[in-house]
Amino acid sequence: MPRATLDHETSNSELERIIERPWFRNLITGLIVFNAVVLGILTYRRELPGEFVSTLEALDQAITFIFAIEIALKLIVYRFQFFKSGWNWFDFIVVGLSLIPGSGAFSVMRALRVLRILRLLHVVPMMKRITEALLKALPGMSAILAVLALFTYVGAVMATNMFGNTDNEEVLLLFGDLPRSAYSLFQVMTMDGWRFEVVEKVIDDGHPYAWVFFLLFIFIASFAILNLFIALIVEALQQEQQAVQAELMAEIEGEIEETASEAHADMIDILRAVEALREEINELKSKLP
Amino acid sequence: MPRATLDHETSNSELERIIERPWFRNLITGLIVFNAVVLGILTYRRELPGEFVSTLEALDQAITFIFAIEIALKLIVYRFQFFKSGWNWFDFIVVGLSLIPGSGAFSVMRALRVLRILRLLHVVPMMKRITEALLKALPGMSAILAVLALFTYVGAVMATNMFGNTDNEEVLLLFGDLPRSAYSLFQVMTMDGWRFEVVEKVIDDGHPYAWVFFLLFIFIASFAILNLFIALIVEALQQEQQAVQAELMAEIEGEIEETASEAHADMIDILRAVEALREEINELKSKLP
Amino acid sequence: MPRATLDHETSNSELERIIERPWFRNLITGLIVFNAVVLGILTYRRELPGEFVSTLEALDQAITFIFAIEIALKLIVYRFQFFKSGWNWFDFIVVGLSLIPGSGAFSVMRALRVLRILRLLHVVPMMKRITEALLKALPGMSAILAVLALFTYVGAVMATNMFGNTDNEEVLLLFGDLPRSAYSLFQVMTMDGWRFEVVEKVIDDGHPYAWVFFLLFIFIASFAILNLFIALIVEALQQEQQAVQAELMAEIEGEIEETASEAHADMIDILRAVEALREEINELKSKLP
Amino acid sequence: MPRATLDHETSNSELERIIERPWFRNLITGLIVFNAVVLGILTYRRELPGEFVSTLEALDQAITFIFAIEIALKLIVYRFQFFKSGWNWFDFIVVGLSLIPGSGAFSVMRALRVLRILRLLHVVPMMKRITEALLKALPGMSAILAVLALFTYVGAVMATNMFGNTDNEEVLLLFGDLPRSAYSLFQVMTMDGWRFEVVEKVIDDGHPYAWVFFLLFIFIASFAILNLFIALIVEALQQEQQAVQAELMAEIEGEIEETASEAHADMIDILRAVEALREEINELKSKLP
Repeated sequence: MPRATLDHETSNSELERIIERPWFRNLITGLIVFNAVVLGILTYRRELPGEFVSTLEALDQAITFIFAIEIALKLIVYRFQFFKSGWNWFDFIVVGLSLIPGSGAFSVMRALRVLRILRLLHVVPMMKRITEALLKALPGMSAILAVLALFTYVGAVMATNMFGNTDNEEVLLLFGDLPRSAYSLFQVMTMDGWRFEVVEKVIDDGHPYAWVFFLLFIFIASFAILNLFIALIVEALQQEQQAVQAELMAEIEGEIEETASEAHADMIDILRAVEALREEINELKSKLP
Repeated sequence: MPRATLDHETSNSELERIIERPWFRNLITGLIVFNAVVLGILTYRRELPGEFVSTLEALDQAITFIFAIEIALKLIVYRFQFFKSGWNWFDFIVVGLSLIPGSGAFSVMRALRVLRILRLLHVVPMMKRITEALLKALPGMSAILAVLALFTYVGAVMATNMFGNTDNEEVLLLFGDLPRSAYSLFQVMTMDGWRFEVVEKVIDDGHPYAWVFFLLFIFIASFAILNLFIALIVEALQQEQQAVQAELMAEIEGEIEETASEAHADMIDILRAVEALREEINELKSKLP
Repeated sequence: MPRATLDHETSNSELERIIERPWFRNLITGLIVFNAVVLGILTYRRELPGEFVSTLEALDQAITFIFAIEIALKLIVYRFQFFKSGWNWFDFIVVGLSLIPGSGAFSVMRALRVLRILRLLHVVPMMKRITEALLKALPGMSAILAVLALFTYVGAVMATNMFGNTDNEEVLLLFGDLPRSAYSLFQVMTMDGWRFEVVEKVIDDGHPYAWVFFLLFIFIASFAILNLFIALIVEALQQEQQAVQAELMAEIEGEIEETASEAHADMIDILRAVEALREEINELKSKLP
Repeated sequence: MPRATLDHETSNSELERIIERPWFRNLITGLIVFNAVVLGILTYRRELPGEFVSTLEALDQAITFIFAIEIALKLIVYRFQFFKSGWNWFDFIVVGLSLIPGSGAFSVMRALRVLRILRLLHVVPMMKRITEALLKALPGMSAILAVLALFTYVGAVMATNMFGNTDNEEVLLLFGDLPRSAYSLFQVMTMDGWRFEVVEKVIDDGHPYAWVFFLLFIFIASFAILNLFIALIVEALQQEQQAVQAELMAEIEGEIEETASEAHADMIDILRAVEALREEINELKSKLP
């Protein structure tokens, strides 16, 4: 059935034209913003009249349905190409989560449906630029984050071994098991209430020298974070500088080449003058016997 | 009435000359500083004798009146041009707020009158330079601030849905409605008391995995703020570097051109020598039969 | 016994080949990661069945034994060269600590055995690069850290003299002796609870102007830390910039040399043309009587 | 009495030679460090035997006396030149404070005597370099610090007017008068306990919209501090970059000049060849009749 295939292809390219049109993109952007407002108002569901809430929920479901159709259209048009884009995966999962039936019963599932609003991050070009710049900065951080994670893991195992073997409830909350210890060390790293909420409680629980451990951890972690920061700045500036250097080099090259071609022209003048001389001499020669 | 118009114009340009004179500007600067001192002393109104307070308040009103006259003069001189400057708008609003009758009754209105002192920000040249540099840095931050605001909004809707449906007063204070949730997430972003004032209270209210939500939020927000910071540094250095590059390029160009003109002079010497040679040959030729 | 020595050498170089092989290095890396997991699970020793804990502890001791053999092999192969590497010292001490008999009885000794996991910092190449970059940044910080330490010492002596002579238990905890004062000043420096946990307690203890001391300390410390930060960024960028400059210079040099050699070729052409002319003239001369 | 004057001059230059000798400087450095240790031990005066304390105090006074003699010697040698150096002023004041009789009675005066140890900041060359670099960075910060101070002053006047008119003791402690308000706003700026220690207390005191004021203040202050930071980095890098640019320019200049002189040499070769030609032609000419 070659005819049918052709028809199908035609309708696909027509669909593609529609999907890629600015008004379609703007419509989707507008719907996401509207959905954000609806979801925001729905947080007041207990204070609002029941009918209004039902209307808003119906609206929310309608918008979800439109998003699902949009993604279905994209799937029809781009087929497996669709899944080559990370943003499409994001849309697919985030809209898919909203379609799971009965999910409204669980507050976590309902909360996850709100992630749909984050589609703005790649639908609005200005935000897409920023988001992709942020994502591009991630790999440069991975090695130093791995070092920090290793330090936190080692610190957490040590803290659990040293401080977790206690009956003191407050210290158990802080260092009772491995995840708690890692979490408390993260708190110490953020320097939020590190002394009286963490260190002094451990000291009071019979570890008078616990401050040595925590001070060392603070110093090492701060130092690593500081260098993470500096590495990111240097990397960003490096890219910047290479562009500047390339530009400068192009300008200098242009300048030198121009000068060189002028000098070359001068020398060709000289060569021509010498040539002319040679002809005169030849003429002279011909005059001689 | 051409005469009247002319007179008017003359008085205008005379006025303009007065307004733009250094002594007038210094007088206004002095008055703002004096007003700042008066307003500072007036914060002790309850401890001071009533007469002294009345005198200071009269002084304050007199200064406000002078500022109003100053702005009126500027309006007469520059007319609609006046409103082309953002600083003039600032002066107009800030002095206008002080003139609203009966405003003294409300502490907020009285507080807003203090904003007059901020006129120093553009009256003192050194401060004006800084303030305008700060304002110029704002647009470069807008995109990343929009991304942060979007994340905070989405996080606030999710937190209100997940944690706000409770009877626990402390958690209601933190996540009871949308603005409260946004405010609490901002607190978490500033890393002030994020664990024991916010996260642990939510965990104790029956959300044992709430820390996952907050840790993700802290990581994303810190990462975005970090990159905001880096973007500002890179942008500031970029402008710097382009100026340095232009200067360097100009120097190099000058150097190359100087060298080129020296070489050109050398070649002209050669050409002349060759020319002289040709003349000698011509002379030689003429000697031949 | 030259034979024996030769044999010894042969076995050494065979050993060296084994130690330096990728599979050996990967084996050690895998063992460290496995050991990290074992030590992590062992933090739950009280909740786990006794047999499982014994098995894990036996595994841990077996791994420690393998590490000890690895270090012994390296000692045999490299002899005193072994101690020229800081990382080898680190391995030697960290594995040595785990071998001290009876050390398991003290929680601190057991905790120190966990430091073995930090061997990953130099066994994994990606982490080694980061760790060495961090260590290389240390000397550049030493001078400013010395200044900060001096300020903290002077501040701690002053605070102990001024605030430590009291019966108030809370203030004694903060400023009762020199180390406590230094520790509290470090807390103030991290700006964690500086006002209500530290300064207000001293003020309430009869030192109404204590805030002057602490504000000065905060300003000086923040300023020093800020400059520490800036110095590190500038230093990192400086190295970066010198590399960029060297590269740029090499490119410019290449460009100039190329141009110069082209010009030189041109001039040699001219010289040859003049030479040819001279031969023609010589020919001419020979034709004359 | 020219003789006496001469004698005086001679003894002065002898004195100067002694004062400027390395061993003298090292002696003073050693004494300051020793004094630091003595003052550190003296913070434990209550726990130590009375005789030991007396000995240490005698030592401390002896060292102060030696410092006073050192400064007197410098005054004799350099006379009014002495006061041209800020560091000499620092020494003069700090040692002078220790000599005030009866000062030991007041804990503040005794505390100020500890400032003597800060003489290390300029006696140790490494520290002097850092300290002077820090002091040199101050003027670049003054304008933006003035803007921040103005904002804090305006904010403090507003906060005192709005929140200080209350009976709530906690709020009076925070915003009861102008210095308290400025101090609380500084606390908010450091983001330490800003929400529950400051903002919520004001909200609970009948100002439900106080968070608007504080959020605005946090945003403006953070933004100003961020830009202060960036300005310092850019300035530091600018100086760096100008040095790099000058170096690069010198290298390029050298390269261009070398090339130019080679080209010049080539052209002189050509000119000489042309000259030789002319001589040949002249020879030819002389052969003709």
